[in-house]
Amino acid sequence: MFLRIDHVGIACHDLEEKIAFYESTFGLTVVSREVNEEQGVREAMLHVADGPSGASYVQLLEPLHPDTPVGRFLAKRGEGVHHIGYGVADVTEALRRLSAQGIRLIDERPRHGSMGAAIAFLHPKDVGGVLTELVQAPER
Amino acid sequence: MFLRIDHVGIACHDLEEKIAFYESTFGLTVVSREVNEEQGVREAMLHVADGPSGASYVQLLEPLHPDTPVGRFLAKRGEGVHHIGYGVADVTEALRRLSAQGIRLIDERPRHGSMGAAIAFLHPKDVGGVLTELVQAPER
Repeated sequence: MFLRIDHVGIACHDLEEKIAFYESTFGLTVVSREVNEEQGVREAMLHVADGPSGASYVQLLEPLHPDTPVGRFLAKRGEGVHHIGYGVADVTEALRRLSAQGIRLIDERPRHGSMGAAIAFLHPKDVGGVLTELVQAPER
Repeated sequence: MFLRIDHVGIACHDLEEKIAFYESTFGLTVVSREVNEEQGVREAMLHVADGPSGASYVQLLEPLHPDTPVGRFLAKRGEGVHHIGYGVADVTEALRRLSAQGIRLIDERPRHGSMGAAIAFLHPKDVGGVLTELVQAPER
């Protein structure tokens, strides 16, 4: 089901400061910046590598307000890894199969993710404490 | 500097149970099992994807004893993402450059990682709360 590690989602207090850090320290390059009002985040995708099924990224996430999922994460745990996104061929089909296996879904249907992807989150309590995102890249 | 997301390191209480979960739920395949006494872990590498600079994995980690880094992580945070490993071409050179930039190193010199890799950890306080590992794959 998983085709690649699509991205590592990292929660931070200051997006611009963290982008500058990852660029200057590790040589990554920002390929997209977006504000996702629905998810309550300002975010950037930094390209790490290309692969047969698509690219891999570091995704930096800054909450738009404290009372958002990423804002509450920061208040509770501090900065760090927020979730892992894995590439799948068909997110709707993946949700159907995972739900049938008893995995609780945060998103019953795909929604809009970074760079035009269709995405959905699985409940971390059913995935060993890991907030797990499915990512179907847009048709090119 | 970063060539790929080499692996996502996930701490768990029961390695065999978690391996079975990732295999049956997400279709991953175990390619290596090791006990690393130095790091105090029993671990498995599950293959996710191949890429130009090497493969990407989910690494599942079970502590050998409570009084180990992963054991203390589990006691404090519970199961979940423990660290992120990024592929680099030359871990010794990467450590030299990062140290010169003021990043604190957990490992001043490379040590033995999974599947013959040379690895080193950077201090999470200098990488936005992310325990970050550098991974130089062995010569093939």
